[in-house]
Amino acid sequence: MGAQPTLAVVGATGSVGTVMRELLSSRRNVWGEIRLVASARSAGRRLPCRGEELTVRELTPDVFDGVDVAMFDVPEAVAAEWAPIAAARGATVVDNSAVFRLHGDVPLVIPEVNPGHLRYRPLGLTASPNGTVTAMVMALAPLHHEYGLRELVIASYQSVSGAGQAGVDALHDQITKVAGDRTLGSRPGNVRQAVGDDLGPFPAPLALNVIPWSGEPAPLGWSSDELKLRNEPRKILGLPDLKVSATCVRVPVVTGHSVAVHAVFGSEVDADESRAILRNAPGVILVDDPEAGEFPMPIDAVGTDPSWIGRIRRAMDDPRALDLFITGDNMRKGAALNSVQLAELIAAELAKR
Amino acid sequence: MGAQPTLAVVGATGSVGTVMRELLSSRRNVWGEIRLVASARSAGRRLPCRGEELTVRELTPDVFDGVDVAMFDVPEAVAAEWAPIAAARGATVVDNSAVFRLHGDVPLVIPEVNPGHLRYRPLGLTASPNGTVTAMVMALAPLHHEYGLRELVIASYQSVSGAGQAGVDALHDQITKVAGDRTLGSRPGNVRQAVGDDLGPFPAPLALNVIPWSGEPAPLGWSSDELKLRNEPRKILGLPDLKVSATCVRVPVVTGHSVAVHAVFGSEVDADESRAILRNAPGVILVDDPEAGEFPMPIDAVGTDPSWIGRIRRAMDDPRALDLFITGDNMRKGAALNSVQLAELIAAELAKR
Repeated sequence: MGAQPTLAVVGATGSVGTVMRELLSSRRNVWGEIRLVASARSAGRRLPCRGEELTVRELTPDVFDGVDVAMFDVPEAVAAEWAPIAAARGATVVDNSAVFRLHGDVPLVIPEVNPGHLRYRPLGLTASPNGTVTAMVMALAPLHHEYGLRELVIASYQSVSGAGQAGVDALHDQITKVAGDRTLGSRPGNVRQAVGDDLGPFPAPLALNVIPWSGEPAPLGWSSDELKLRNEPRKILGLPDLKVSATCVRVPVVTGHSVAVHAVFGSEVDADESRAILRNAPGVILVDDPEAGEFPMPIDAVGTDPSWIGRIRRAMDDPRALDLFITGDNMRKGAALNSVQLAELIAAELAKR
Repeated sequence: MGAQPTLAVVGATGSVGTVMRELLSSRRNVWGEIRLVASARSAGRRLPCRGEELTVRELTPDVFDGVDVAMFDVPEAVAAEWAPIAAARGATVVDNSAVFRLHGDVPLVIPEVNPGHLRYRPLGLTASPNGTVTAMVMALAPLHHEYGLRELVIASYQSVSGAGQAGVDALHDQITKVAGDRTLGSRPGNVRQAVGDDLGPFPAPLALNVIPWSGEPAPLGWSSDELKLRNEPRKILGLPDLKVSATCVRVPVVTGHSVAVHAVFGSEVDADESRAILRNAPGVILVDDPEAGEFPMPIDAVGTDPSWIGRIRRAMDDPRALDLFITGDNMRKGAALNSVQLAELIAAELAKR
């Protein structure tokens, strides 16, 4: 393949699509043509990308003709229908939805962790993991390689942007409504009253609250997001028997998903050695000096590429376990950035053919 | 003892002291005289309690003369100095600080869980547990009695009122500063910029953020609050070998401490059976129907007495483990209410002498 490859960005007008366009504008340019694709409603809009103004094209089968790589960030039903159409037209698809992630013939890849999985993609489909999973696995993979991961107990602190622009809008609206009344949150019911029915995509007010629920109902009381935190790390790390328990909680943060993790390994761990390992790990930034106020926090991680990891402690009652805290920008490495990196890897591979 | 006992409320002007006065005004009255006590700075103020206006008295040794029970909610250094003075003057002390909680001759008591421990108090001192501990142990004790608790992995979602009125004021101030600017939290650094230096008692902004730190630095990277979550349940439940790992995180919630808990037991557990046990447990309210939007949340628990428990799931990879979520009002059962209940128990015991 001589010329630079053609890229399609499907869902280019959405909140993750917007970050994809920003990343394409700021990273080393490996692309020839870039096509912005969205639903008929958005077709015709002019959007900036890579210093150009591009016209958004409607999602049709023809739009994929001549496309080498197509990144999708669209609702699950749209991905389920259209990713195979793009692949049938010859594009290699990088999908950010959950639809194909656990499919046996679809690699689920974090470039810094399991790039080799990219090689086997008989359907022309590749999946990018859930945003909370990506930040967590980035930080845990180097420790797994040293100590051998056996079990994870996870509690999440998930931001509203994981629920899309509607989630961001709802939180900002609610913050405006609760600002200025210093009695709110100290008396029964008054936060619900102040916020009213403006819940956005959430089942309860999020301003001055936390909601121990994220995703769709799954069997036995679990949420779909909690199952993702079990199934996706197992596949990415090649550990089908990894024990995982997760509780997913939404918090009033705009962007930046965090997790408190208790990780049990096969061999004895050391906190200082773990810090040394993570200091040299790709895509990870170690922020671990609590007495100096240094720990991973979403307001610092937002807009950055790496997973932020800190609060590393060896469990007091288990020499094979570490307790730690991880934060990552769910819009970047947790979504757009991982997809762009996968698209670039695929482009480099196509260039060698 | 014929007459109704005399109660001293030490720290009566503080935020927990205020809730103590409210509770004394609304609960069945078992007290004769009530003395409100505070530092010299607050002495002379008139404050409502039990329908009367009481004059706040200065903390001096004499103030405890004739006092039967003294509830303390004051800084640790003040409790360390003055609780023994009150006991020496004949008062039975109920202290809400951490100073005496782990002392071998001081019972650490939740009335619904281990009232029998109250009997042995050779120093005349009784301690009330940390607020996060109380909510959690209330909910876990009935499950422990059925299944035998072995291990806890805890991640907390702690509200700002746990850091006193200064914490509450800081969060409200910060919410006002971030309200209305819809770019905040989506771009690097702009929440820190909007909040400025107005951090209150916290090491970073809390509006639109979570801070994985609470308490004072302890050895090996732990925080004092994390050690409390290990040491206090061990003592209350009489389980000196209970394995505990905790990560404490402050969230932008005014009142209501929450925990996500992974609890491992000695025998196999059942989620439905656990719900049935908790439905009949004292001081616990079961809120566990996620599809109906029913889970424990701080905005609902604030102002109520019980521990709210929900999201009960048997771990998928361990038939002896439950994952669950617990919320409680840290100002009431987590502080003032537990102390008032202990004071009432002691008053009833004194009445029998």
